[in-house]
Amino acid sequence: MPEVASSRPPLTIRMRDEDNVAIVANDGGLPAGTQLPDGVPGAGLVLREKVPQGHKVALRDIAEGEVVLRYAVPIGYALKPIAAGSWVHERLLQMPSARALEGLPIATVKPPVHEPLEGFTFEGYRNRDGSVGTRNILAITTTVQCVAGVVAQAVARIKAELLPLYPNVDDVIGLEHSYGCGVAIEAPDAIIPIRTLKNISLNPNFGGEVMVVSLGCEKLQPARLLPPGSFPITDERGADAGPETVCLQDDAHVGFMSMLDDILQTARPHLERLNARRRETVPASELVVGVQCGGSDAFSGVTANPAVGFCADLLVRAGATIMFSENTEVRDAVEQLTSRAATPEVADAIIHELGWYDRYLDRGRVDRAANTTPGNKAGGLSNIAEKAMGSIIKSGSSAISHVLSPGDKLRRDQRGLVYAATPASDFICGTLQLAAGMNMHIFTTGRGTPYGLAECPVVKVATRTDLARRWHDLMDINAGRIADGEVSIEETGWEMFRLLLDVASGRKKTWAEHWKLHNALVLFNPAPVT
Amino acid sequence: MPEVASSRPPLTIRMRDEDNVAIVANDGGLPAGTQLPDGVPGAGLVLREKVPQGHKVALRDIAEGEVVLRYAVPIGYALKPIAAGSWVHERLLQMPSARALEGLPIATVKPPVHEPLEGFTFEGYRNRDGSVGTRNILAITTTVQCVAGVVAQAVARIKAELLPLYPNVDDVIGLEHSYGCGVAIEAPDAIIPIRTLKNISLNPNFGGEVMVVSLGCEKLQPARLLPPGSFPITDERGADAGPETVCLQDDAHVGFMSMLDDILQTARPHLERLNARRRETVPASELVVGVQCGGSDAFSGVTANPAVGFCADLLVRAGATIMFSENTEVRDAVEQLTSRAATPEVADAIIHELGWYDRYLDRGRVDRAANTTPGNKAGGLSNIAEKAMGSIIKSGSSAISHVLSPGDKLRRDQRGLVYAATPASDFICGTLQLAAGMNMHIFTTGRGTPYGLAECPVVKVATRTDLARRWHDLMDINAGRIADGEVSIEETGWEMFRLLLDVASGRKKTWAEHWKLHNALVLFNPAPVT
Ligand SMILES: [Ca+2]
Ligand SMILES: [Ca+2]
Ligand SMILES: [Ca+2]
Ligand SMILES: [Ca+2]
Ligand SMILES: [Ca+2]
Repeated sequence: MPEVASSRPPLTIRMRDEDNVAIVANDGGLPAGTQLPDGVPGAGLVLREKVPQGHKVALRDIAEGEVVLRYAVPIGYALKPIAAGSWVHERLLQMPSARALEGLPIATVKPPVHEPLEGFTFEGYRNRDGSVGTRNILAITTTVQCVAGVVAQAVARIKAELLPLYPNVDDVIGLEHSYGCGVAIEAPDAIIPIRTLKNISLNPNFGGEVMVVSLGCEKLQPARLLPPGSFPITDERGADAGPETVCLQDDAHVGFMSMLDDILQTARPHLERLNARRRETVPASELVVGVQCGGSDAFSGVTANPAVGFCADLLVRAGATIMFSENTEVRDAVEQLTSRAATPEVADAIIHELGWYDRYLDRGRVDRAANTTPGNKAGGLSNIAEKAMGSIIKSGSSAISHVLSPGDKLRRDQRGLVYAATPASDFICGTLQLAAGMNMHIFTTGRGTPYGLAECPVVKVATRTDLARRWHDLMDINAGRIADGEVSIEETGWEMFRLLLDVASGRKKTWAEHWKLHNALVLFNPAPVT
Repeated sequence: MPEVASSRPPLTIRMRDEDNVAIVANDGGLPAGTQLPDGVPGAGLVLREKVPQGHKVALRDIAEGEVVLRYAVPIGYALKPIAAGSWVHERLLQMPSARALEGLPIATVKPPVHEPLEGFTFEGYRNRDGSVGTRNILAITTTVQCVAGVVAQAVARIKAELLPLYPNVDDVIGLEHSYGCGVAIEAPDAIIPIRTLKNISLNPNFGGEVMVVSLGCEKLQPARLLPPGSFPITDERGADAGPETVCLQDDAHVGFMSMLDDILQTARPHLERLNARRRETVPASELVVGVQCGGSDAFSGVTANPAVGFCADLLVRAGATIMFSENTEVRDAVEQLTSRAATPEVADAIIHELGWYDRYLDRGRVDRAANTTPGNKAGGLSNIAEKAMGSIIKSGSSAISHVLSPGDKLRRDQRGLVYAATPASDFICGTLQLAAGMNMHIFTTGRGTPYGLAECPVVKVATRTDLARRWHDLMDINAGRIADGEVSIEETGWEMFRLLLDVASGRKKTWAEHWKLHNALVLFNPAPVT
């Protein structure tokens, strides 16, 4: 393929004054011999070799063993001398070791006090427990994968036969998963997948209309998944009733169609109640936003993630909840997290979660460095230390007010900036954020991914204009315009905040919703299968 | 609910003369005071309490600490004295500890020499590598879950727009899974999910027409999943080509529809080649049958599984391949396996696999006892020792000729009775048996499960007439007639063997195929996620 010279003047981006590297912003990178123009970091330097887009260029000579700084933190040590103007790729860097979890700074940073942001609202579905849904969905909980084929057929029939009768209901989904039997349900770590499934059933987008399809003989019995008291039951069955359950092994089921009919019959009153609901104006503080990144490149930490960080601060100012996650991507930045903790208890909880994850990885004989992908490296991210700095910037500048263990659900009083401890895997992280109570999702991507969830709208943010142009009907926001110099981080953060309110209100759909692009739930099960 | 008295005379089943317990065969169990009639085990005994169907009754007084024998092996030790005629339930038994993996009898049993079974054939699709498909399916391999939403839409379009043009193609399926990224791909155990995915792509039911949809930046790159040489490429692309791959991040893709169009275009020549194939008569030796049980009860080991065992012997006599699996369900019967190994190498391989699994469970702080379910216990299986005896009976009486590690694929010369080491989880076991090259699946169930796979026909066998009657359009064979005294184990084994040939030939469909009941693939990934 012929190399197309960039039509824009050479542009480099340095994150902090102390950095001795900058990244090349130009589409297609910059060829050897390029002189960096006035007004950009490294002005006057001549590139000694081609530097791909998103990759780092040395701004000055770096001696062997010398630290390479980006975001003013060490992302590696030079394995040999690197001359100014060289491409600083992953093979030139020794990765720094992860900070030990002892002796960390605890709640030392006084975060900037932002003034409250008032008057922003959206149109949402208020639930009996006070939470607010952004969609009005009937979700059918399943205790075990055995029932998935039957539930899939029941959902197809509900969509065809019942949904037309209930036009205010947005969707019907089966909460399929691979847990429930053939698993070591008494293992200490089994609590994670079990509470995840329970809490997903209670996600605000499902309106409290819990119904369960069970096989009958599975390990994860309905009463174990959703013990009485798990959620308020206000219908005629009374508060002590468990969830309404269709058990396929019930003696009354004779023939396959009787199972489908039973599921449809059970769904009807739930659909009726959901259908009777109307959106009402609620304050922006009712947003529970999960953020994550996937398919990251070096622009993730320069454009999209900083814009998410700005939006996160707006959400905190508005009294809303914003969760960031991805243990292996914050591990190298643990100091920043513990120092930003609102209280020593929060810092301790962060240390507890990351320590647990260190040991979990260690049992499998790997460490946090297993996070990075070929695409990350091709995109200019040398290692997990560099990736982490670009990842945690999504959290903005607020104090961290709460920490959730994997699969835990936020209480109504847990607002502000929350660290929800999850693996970085896009699907596991999204699944755990659903369990936490997420009603809106922001997902940034540099390499591009068609990620989507049936349970919650996903706003996808491109880190580069090239991606946003090619994936024009998959990306909801183009943060690449920040690197193009067309908009500021702040402007993009505001665009995101406003789009969240529009999508939450149902006034706009995300592209993933438009195309019905849905990924399956993936549970985090650190316990054995049997 | 009123108790309906059984219309048949009281019937008990004892597996071996040495056993001091028998199970109650009657629907609804037998009430206290029932006298066991002449001609059944325990004749003359009066039941001291109600004994549910499938549960054990003591045939003589058992002292505290005395061994309880079923299948002539210890299934437990009495925790207190048990009088003859009592219900011997799980709370009365101390489970025996699992046999250590040292000092086992190795290849000591000379299995009965059965005469070869000749002249049985089926109509199958002969593949280039010599294997034979029982269905003619286009399977789209995916490297990572990120692409699942796009592939699902592409599959829907292929079904609507292309399949009508290729009437000899049975189906198009996307091989969706949760592996590929966000996983510790360099962990020692990562080899298991990777080879599983690779080998599933090469399942005989897919005709060697491998096509891959990749995202682009994932850890599991197409060339890592299917390195050149993984399968014979005879088309114009040449033998060194990798699999044909649609990469969603390809620069040429502008807009979502271009991705779908590319997948459809790529599928066309594969569909054309599949469509040109015709079934031909092949010997029964080309069957590769995976057997497993799920939702087991005490009848599993009395009716369905012994019939499967008889059928397994028929298959071995016909020169076919029959795989049994489920590590935690054979662990308590390890002596029987090692003594039946054809060679010391096979015995060593069995010990290696079960030892590996012991350690895997131990890392998660559980043991093989984590296998049993509430349904097993309700169905009369007191513990894993008892369940194991009923489970391995599926393997029949032949020598074990080969052992597969999880995710491994059978070589063409690996015929006969094979132990494919897998977890017992129905979906993980089925997924690994697909990877091994299964072209027919037998699944026995006592409690009932609507299990099905899109990739391979699943013949489902009910252990009880009551289940077969209620699930008349889900169960393919009623082995409960054995307990009813209507047919013999041998007759049911022959019925199964003939049904396998009919279904393999496409002359009959299983109920799961009829209803399109499909469970998702579930990978066995003992390595961490990141
Ligand atoms: Ca990430
Ligand atoms: Ca992620
Ligand atoms: Ca019954
Ligand atoms: Ca089993
Ligand atoms: Ca099983």
